[in-house]
Amino acid sequence: MSETDAAARPAVGWIGLGAMGAPMARVAAEAGFPVTAFDVNPAAAPALAPAVRAAGSARDAVAGAELVVVMVATPAQLEDVLFGEAGIAEALSAGTRVMVMATVGPAAIEGTAARLAEQGVGVIDAPVSGGVARAGTGDLLVMVSGAEEDVAAARPVLDALASTAPVVGARPGDGQRFKIVNQLLCGVHIAVAGEALALADAMSLDLAQVHEVLGAGAAASFMFGDRGARMVAGEFDEVKSALDIFVKDMGLVAGAAQEAGQDVPIAQAAQALFQRGHDAGLGRKDDSIVMRVARGE
Amino acid sequence: MSETDAAARPAVGWIGLGAMGAPMARVAAEAGFPVTAFDVNPAAAPALAPAVRAAGSARDAVAGAELVVVMVATPAQLEDVLFGEAGIAEALSAGTRVMVMATVGPAAIEGTAARLAEQGVGVIDAPVSGGVARAGTGDLLVMVSGAEEDVAAARPVLDALASTAPVVGARPGDGQRFKIVNQLLCGVHIAVAGEALALADAMSLDLAQVHEVLGAGAAASFMFGDRGARMVAGEFDEVKSALDIFVKDMGLVAGAAQEAGQDVPIAQAAQALFQRGHDAGLGRKDDSIVMRVARGE
Repeated sequence: MSETDAAARPAVGWIGLGAMGAPMARVAAEAGFPVTAFDVNPAAAPALAPAVRAAGSARDAVAGAELVVVMVATPAQLEDVLFGEAGIAEALSAGTRVMVMATVGPAAIEGTAARLAEQGVGVIDAPVSGGVARAGTGDLLVMVSGAEEDVAAARPVLDALASTAPVVGARPGDGQRFKIVNQLLCGVHIAVAGEALALADAMSLDLAQVHEVLGAGAAASFMFGDRGARMVAGEFDEVKSALDIFVKDMGLVAGAAQEAGQDVPIAQAAQALFQRGHDAGLGRKDDSIVMRVARGE
Repeated sequence: MSETDAAARPAVGWIGLGAMGAPMARVAAEAGFPVTAFDVNPAAAPALAPAVRAAGSARDAVAGAELVVVMVATPAQLEDVLFGEAGIAEALSAGTRVMVMATVGPAAIEGTAARLAEQGVGVIDAPVSGGVARAGTGDLLVMVSGAEEDVAAARPVLDALASTAPVVGARPGDGQRFKIVNQLLCGVHIAVAGEALALADAMSLDLAQVHEVLGAGAAASFMFGDRGARMVAGEFDEVKSALDIFVKDMGLVAGAAQEAGQDVPIAQAAQALFQRGHDAGLGRKDDSIVMRVARGE
């Protein structure tokens, strides 16, 4: 690797190797970035070796890193990873940059950015959309916001992970706001696909034909196509995306909407459906199971 | 025209020449069917001459017709056209067929079919989806149900009007049930596009960029693409589809859901948004104005 190549491929400390984080870390490593990774689940990192180097702790993972990528699941995990007992914040030297790719909402990212700014650490807000399959091929959609120089420093890694990574704002928080709007649409589209197929079932229609005929017209959505197919097939144990993810994300939508003073009654109705599924013990099932929840089964 | 051609192109009596009915009647006439049409609005039929022959009354329009197409706007209009003071039902001889292409709900079509069956008149239930543009090019989606011989008799006209016209059931009513599910999805997708862009606006995001970035990913829907573009442009006076259509159709969804014993809370939330727009005097505006209604403007 020439000096130029090395400069274009900064050392990456990676925190979070879940369903999305693991394939993303692998894609970054295979693109030539030296990735050192840690997950609270000790089984996660070694499975990615040798492409991804496993660290024994979060602080070990970020030691010497120019860019730290955080791909955890919740705002609480972000807080813990950075500022908890074994948090990495105190191990970060000035000039390091932290790219948060988790969906944590604007409030969490703004708080994080303010605290890290005090020690000269820049934050890139970069939540992703696209699911596990696209994570594994470097074809994610990433909604990026942050200071220009921070975004520029993260750009090579973004280019490896994403097919599209537009800058959607100059402040950390705007990426999350875009993601909030994205999740509002995705969550409602999944929930209404469930509600529509539940009604079709209640009216004794042929669900496969409903999905085929309506999915080709004005009623089409990505989610009606994707999740609708799983609803028709009844494949709820083959979990592509767990119901609990939308319990969390619709909660973030509600919080952001309340902060912005915007009523979102349709999102609330969808949120209630996901919550009912969670309360029925279906949180770890594929989110397409909301069709059964809507049907009252 | 040879005898075979004439046999394949039965005389069509056409009732209803509104925004959808007029281009559909023209397309049928241009495909070679002798179409005689009537609308309660006396200006409608002459505008389609000479392709479509104008009748002075509904009964005149259906005199001698083998197939009667009804493309009115509401269940009340269907009732009136058939069984009202100047209704056509008593003018129909046994063996005539009536194809109802309006969205009137399963209950109305089942009642109509039962009454007309008494006089030997078959009913084809054939509601359409696709909007004015596709109506004008014979590219509609038609959801067809009815007895096999009735559907077969209507097939040449269906082929002229539609790019896709699947048989979705053997009884009049199933077409309407498919259309109900279609409208549930379409109505919620329009309303949630409005709610999502309203939230984006409340969070001071660039709406054009939100529409562009999110419309390419998992949040995509036909309606977010189509109506979302009009919401971003603020083009509510150029009416492609009036808000009041979804006030009616979401009412039909609610009625069908109640009859089937299926809760549809997401559809209800969307219905409430359309209703608020109607109550604010916006019923004749383009339905994309629900974004402004959601924003509380």
